[in-house]
Amino acid sequence: MSVTAPRGFRAAGVAAGLKSGGARDIALVVNDGPDAGVAGVFTANRVKAAPVRWTQQVVHGGVARAVVLNSGGANACTGPAGFQDTHATAEHTAAVLTSASARLIVGAADVAVCSTGLIGERLPMERLLPGVRAATRALARDGGPAAAEAIMTTDSRPKTTVTRGSGWTVGGMAKGAGMLAPGMATMLCVLTTDAVAGPETLDAALRAACRVTFDRLDSDGCMSTNDTVLLLASGSSGIEPTAAELTEVVTAACRDLAGQLLADAEGATKEVAIEVVGAASEDDAVQVGRAVARNNLVKTALFGNDPNWGRILAAVGTTTAVFDADEVDVAVNGIWVCRAGAAAEDRSKVDLTGRAVTVRVDLHAGTDTATIWTNDLSHAYVHENSAYST
Amino acid sequence: MSVTAPRGFRAAGVAAGLKSGGARDIALVVNDGPDAGVAGVFTANRVKAAPVRWTQQVVHGGVARAVVLNSGGANACTGPAGFQDTHATAEHTAAVLTSASARLIVGAADVAVCSTGLIGERLPMERLLPGVRAATRALARDGGPAAAEAIMTTDSRPKTTVTRGSGWTVGGMAKGAGMLAPGMATMLCVLTTDAVAGPETLDAALRAACRVTFDRLDSDGCMSTNDTVLLLASGSSGIEPTAAELTEVVTAACRDLAGQLLADAEGATKEVAIEVVGAASEDDAVQVGRAVARNNLVKTALFGNDPNWGRILAAVGTTTAVFDADEVDVAVNGIWVCRAGAAAEDRSKVDLTGRAVTVRVDLHAGTDTATIWTNDLSHAYVHENSAYST
Repeated sequence: MSVTAPRGFRAAGVAAGLKSGGARDIALVVNDGPDAGVAGVFTANRVKAAPVRWTQQVVHGGVARAVVLNSGGANACTGPAGFQDTHATAEHTAAVLTSASARLIVGAADVAVCSTGLIGERLPMERLLPGVRAATRALARDGGPAAAEAIMTTDSRPKTTVTRGSGWTVGGMAKGAGMLAPGMATMLCVLTTDAVAGPETLDAALRAACRVTFDRLDSDGCMSTNDTVLLLASGSSGIEPTAAELTEVVTAACRDLAGQLLADAEGATKEVAIEVVGAASEDDAVQVGRAVARNNLVKTALFGNDPNWGRILAAVGTTTAVFDADEVDVAVNGIWVCRAGAAAEDRSKVDLTGRAVTVRVDLHAGTDTATIWTNDLSHAYVHENSAYST
Repeated sequence: MSVTAPRGFRAAGVAAGLKSGGARDIALVVNDGPDAGVAGVFTANRVKAAPVRWTQQVVHGGVARAVVLNSGGANACTGPAGFQDTHATAEHTAAVLTSASARLIVGAADVAVCSTGLIGERLPMERLLPGVRAATRALARDGGPAAAEAIMTTDSRPKTTVTRGSGWTVGGMAKGAGMLAPGMATMLCVLTTDAVAGPETLDAALRAACRVTFDRLDSDGCMSTNDTVLLLASGSSGIEPTAAELTEVVTAACRDLAGQLLADAEGATKEVAIEVVGAASEDDAVQVGRAVARNNLVKTALFGNDPNWGRILAAVGTTTAVFDADEVDVAVNGIWVCRAGAAAEDRSKVDLTGRAVTVRVDLHAGTDTATIWTNDLSHAYVHENSAYST
């Protein structure tokens, strides 16, 4: 049920002709309240798409009644005209929502906007605005799956989640298959909840959840211009969970979606967990995990079913983390192929034929840990990304 | 003539069975003097191969009579036993050189050692040591080309240079086709000169040369454990150039070799210059150039002949350089496809069918510039690096 699993939300996904082939390309999520709380986490990329800059302002106010999302164009690097397109989209969404329902009076400042697709091209507003009107007409309590479908780009399947608290629920949808490396977040994601929660609680829960889920996903090292994660709260369950409860359930929802993103990454044949243990700090563990996750020689080796721990160690050596090169251990799928910085168990014992791979790096420098999730680097990745925009 | 172009040097390259198929795999370069100056620049990787740690000590003393190099094994991540292998190689080289010539008395501390090949495996010393003896017998004034051949790994051809000063010469050889991203240097390279120069002058010239050549080459973002660049000076021309003259000619030699490395990078179909101009500082320009050079989505786009400037801008946005996203211009092969952060000239005008590609990024934030050299990311890169160690 995606974003419409919690009470107080309607959604829709329609085809407006932004994508070729008649696929759904406009999603609309509406919060019918009683509350209209929102929190957001955005790309750390300094080249931010127009909808990111718009939605940061919306979230700053702490209130959002609706989110309108489109695939088929990122509206990034489109200059002042592109920002005006985003503004017009929010204005139009507010107007059609207000005219469609006596219950709902929506201003443009209450409408978050998200876009995804090719960078550097203007959106076809003459198709997008009628699409928003059609989405408004299609809004329904069971519209979550259609909305999740409408935000797909190179995704092979929609990503949705439903996670239950005690009497309240978190629902969510996400898209993302390439340009998957976190700044603050890694793709488009809308989470909804019917819990009662104030803006600080929502914000803290979302940041805590992203930090250990989307921020630890690094499929291809490439940070997008459009990454946005939003959490909308309707309060319609009437239940106010503690901050810890809210954080736990939102984190579970984000972890579920992050796993679906990893599984559907462009061209990937492996889902790889880089588990760094024995670190002097969590930051060290994250830094080491990310260095390994971003190393093209490690990634091609894994594609070739090769437990090439030398490349892993060479990647660890590029970091500033605390470690002694003569003490580092590396295991691949449970076989400790490297102990104390040198060869140990026979690498031929490592079975890399499955899709799931675990690389464990023990720095022997402390007790902190972190896991970074990544993919291999395959022929299909090169193919998809050398042919995408042409 | 490679490293034997300057007077005062002999070299050899022989096959000792470290590589399969009977290819040359041991190189020896001897400095017959009268001087025996040496300077060196090494990988910044904290996981340093045994020969790097050994040779750093040799260079620290400022004197080297010989360099022995092997392909067929990097002797990296081999623990204390691997370091003993390097030590034994230097001892053996010193002994056979001393016994072969009444003129030359060489100690192990005067012998630099370089290794390249697979990480994590011990060297077959029972083949390597006899190979050093054979190389000593084969030493010749015209042995430079054979030495250059013996250090090749996945290189498709040897890389050599001869650059002339006024009455003196710099010769050089290098290897490197993968794991090409600089820490301080990017591969194995031995430069020789018959100029007269003190150790500080040699060191300053080599560092200045590397900084703007090998350090600006970033083929695949992967920093090796074994990178070593050595400059040996025999003084046998009797001519002492100024520091500026020496730096200029050494830089020209390094630039020549760096270009050959770029041209022969594993699986590459493009040689790409990322020219960053209008930067607030040279460091900013280097940071931006490197971010673009390391971006897999930019690299796959170039492989696909796609002038995808949006991906270039997204890569620029990940840096901390001074710039305003709404002012950045991007040209691909001379066509300004992006002006002021948005689409400008028609991207279909860009001709990417050739092997040489120039990406120019104007940050409009100052007057500093830097060029980073890189390659595309191709199917052949994935193929070579997923199959290398198996």
